[in-house]
Amino acid sequence: MDSGSEYDELWRSLLPLGYQPSSGGYRRFAWNKADLACRAWFTAQAADRGLTVHTDRNGNQWAWWGEELAGKALAIGSHLDSVPDGGAFDGPLGVISSFSAIDLLREAGWSPQRPVAVANFADEEGARFGVACAGSRLLTGQLDPARARALTDDDGVSMAAAMESAGHDPEGIGRDDALLERIGQYVELHIEQGRALVDLGRAIGVASSIWPHGRWRFEFGGEANHAGTTRLEDRRDPMLTYAQTVLAARAAAQQHGALATFGRVQVEPNGTNAIPSRVSAWLDTRAPDEATLRAVLADLEAAAKERAALDGASLSVVNESLTPIVEFDHVLRDQLARTLGQAPILPTGAGHDAGILAACLPTAMLFVRNPSGVSHSPAEQAEQADCRSGVQALAGVVARLAGDPVDLGAAR
Amino acid sequence: MDSGSEYDELWRSLLPLGYQPSSGGYRRFAWNKADLACRAWFTAQAADRGLTVHTDRNGNQWAWWGEELAGKALAIGSHLDSVPDGGAFDGPLGVISSFSAIDLLREAGWSPQRPVAVANFADEEGARFGVACAGSRLLTGQLDPARARALTDDDGVSMAAAMESAGHDPEGIGRDDALLERIGQYVELHIEQGRALVDLGRAIGVASSIWPHGRWRFEFGGEANHAGTTRLEDRRDPMLTYAQTVLAARAAAQQHGALATFGRVQVEPNGTNAIPSRVSAWLDTRAPDEATLRAVLADLEAAAKERAALDGASLSVVNESLTPIVEFDHVLRDQLARTLGQAPILPTGAGHDAGILAACLPTAMLFVRNPSGVSHSPAEQAEQADCRSGVQALAGVVARLAGDPVDLGAAR
Repeated sequence: MDSGSEYDELWRSLLPLGYQPSSGGYRRFAWNKADLACRAWFTAQAADRGLTVHTDRNGNQWAWWGEELAGKALAIGSHLDSVPDGGAFDGPLGVISSFSAIDLLREAGWSPQRPVAVANFADEEGARFGVACAGSRLLTGQLDPARARALTDDDGVSMAAAMESAGHDPEGIGRDDALLERIGQYVELHIEQGRALVDLGRAIGVASSIWPHGRWRFEFGGEANHAGTTRLEDRRDPMLTYAQTVLAARAAAQQHGALATFGRVQVEPNGTNAIPSRVSAWLDTRAPDEATLRAVLADLEAAAKERAALDGASLSVVNESLTPIVEFDHVLRDQLARTLGQAPILPTGAGHDAGILAACLPTAMLFVRNPSGVSHSPAEQAEQADCRSGVQALAGVVARLAGDPVDLGAAR
Repeated sequence: MDSGSEYDELWRSLLPLGYQPSSGGYRRFAWNKADLACRAWFTAQAADRGLTVHTDRNGNQWAWWGEELAGKALAIGSHLDSVPDGGAFDGPLGVISSFSAIDLLREAGWSPQRPVAVANFADEEGARFGVACAGSRLLTGQLDPARARALTDDDGVSMAAAMESAGHDPEGIGRDDALLERIGQYVELHIEQGRALVDLGRAIGVASSIWPHGRWRFEFGGEANHAGTTRLEDRRDPMLTYAQTVLAARAAAQQHGALATFGRVQVEPNGTNAIPSRVSAWLDTRAPDEATLRAVLADLEAAAKERAALDGASLSVVNESLTPIVEFDHVLRDQLARTLGQAPILPTGAGHDAGILAACLPTAMLFVRNPSGVSHSPAEQAEQADCRSGVQALAGVVARLAGDPVDLGAAR
């Protein structure tokens, strides 16, 4: 690849932003300092390439190539925010590959016959305010603006306040038909979050569907009391109910061929010698279909209720989000797979902006092999050769969908 | 009680300090703003009563009545710090009752024949730095000064730094023989942390012993990964190991007639869609004797290890503190019970400064009835009449031990 040094420079300039030496991961959360640095980076990279940058009403950034051309745009891109201590690739690989694919196409003398836009979607991970894909959900009307503004982070800061202190007007958020009208298709390149491509011996795959996905908050209530003086029979200890529920979640997932995880917990008062008054825990569930998802939750709630009665604990279960199954556009999917030499077609359990946008326009995803299979962790990995194959693949897709086919072989 | 209004005023002036309207409890942690306000309150109350106040090398406060008198002092008092969202009585009841007992004795025309000192022990709860009774442990040489200075709170602030910013020299901490030489006995009045006095229909009791008590930190290590894409069989989820260990702790406690509690947990990265890389949890155990305590821990560790192997998790267990059984001085105990009209004699699972000082000098404790039995919680309670009986009892004990018996009947 002739654009090798620009590609390396893209990574070199982005990698330090929001890096946590203590964990080796990233803490780029919606509108925080690291996220704002990433947004400034996006603007600068677009400017370097002569692309025009707009931030839409929902905080998503768009860098346009040939904005003046007729026809609906082909959008590519991903996101730059991260989960707590997330890896370097989840999100950024798609944005960097998009800029790099444009570099590659220009080197090959190719130019678009309709607009091409690189997107950086806001708040994809939902790490700060609890709702994943908030930017694309707002854009497509899948998240109520008033509800979004009122969401708060762990310090009690609302999304509205966070937007305002970043200079973004929270009153403008909500479905944006004018912008959606301008986009014809969206193709998102992403690191694979699993080992399917490793098993198949392939560098690049195409997504078939995204499993339905739900998040529920479990509130276990008990009675704070002294751990050294309260007889076992006088206790109302919600930690016991929580513990039983964690084990029940794994059992239900196993039984139904689904996934269920408790990865986030808050305890009150969280003192070594105090029986907790409250344990709040968040369940993340995914399954091949929504009926299975509901069955997992039903089994789990039954087990939690039974144990709560034993512990004298209270239980409330609140759904925080529920995303139905997403089938990516079959025509686009098959077109991509053919363009990439019969690339394998894979389902995924992870949500993505491409899954949200699929409700409004044809979308597709490319996956880049991840040797460790690990994701949402500093151990997330991708070989440089595979990343470059991803750029080649994305450039080939852009050429095929937004203009005349071009021979990128010379650059391989 | 003629000193009724002074008694009410003691509570009125102390109750607002460190109060948390959100929980209805207190957050007075060693050397924090609320704790410093309590310390200033102690100095002011002592000054109002013409008592001379010294802060010892370990940060404990002492208010002296008749410091110039010959003989070793009778010390009374307790502590003013709290657990997170603790109740109003645990600690403060002993300090307020001490000042109030002095008021009552003076009204009755009594004066001491040897010094009487009211103590406010520093950092009794260990809520901030993890070691309970830090002030009395340092004073009696039961906590290494270098280790104490290096202890850190959840924000990474060391005890040394916290002392320094409060104007206390951390280099001076450590065993204080000169001060210990001046104290003949210590009697601590405390709210009961249980329902034994309720069951017996008595307002005041005397302590027999404190159960041995241990704190262990369990570190469960796994691999952070995406909750939506990682197959169950590829996971190393330490939350499962933790959950099994919580249930095993309850089972072991039940089997051995002991207490075992997990009330404090920290999860990394603590994201809804991330399998944890690490769960840290603190076990609090108490048992009638040390052999039983060890048996509970052994059962628990075996269960945790077995489950860790199943989950592919790592496990490390670190002892953070271990306090042997404390038998209070029998002569003093029986003398108090007789003075108080054959008050009932009760064991307790809670640690106290009186238990730490028992290693160096005769100590005793008085308990005041707690109708709810609840402790370390805003629901902790004591009837005003019982609190006033506590003041009467303590005044009677001071009169009996530090001078001539006096008739406090008129004040009843």
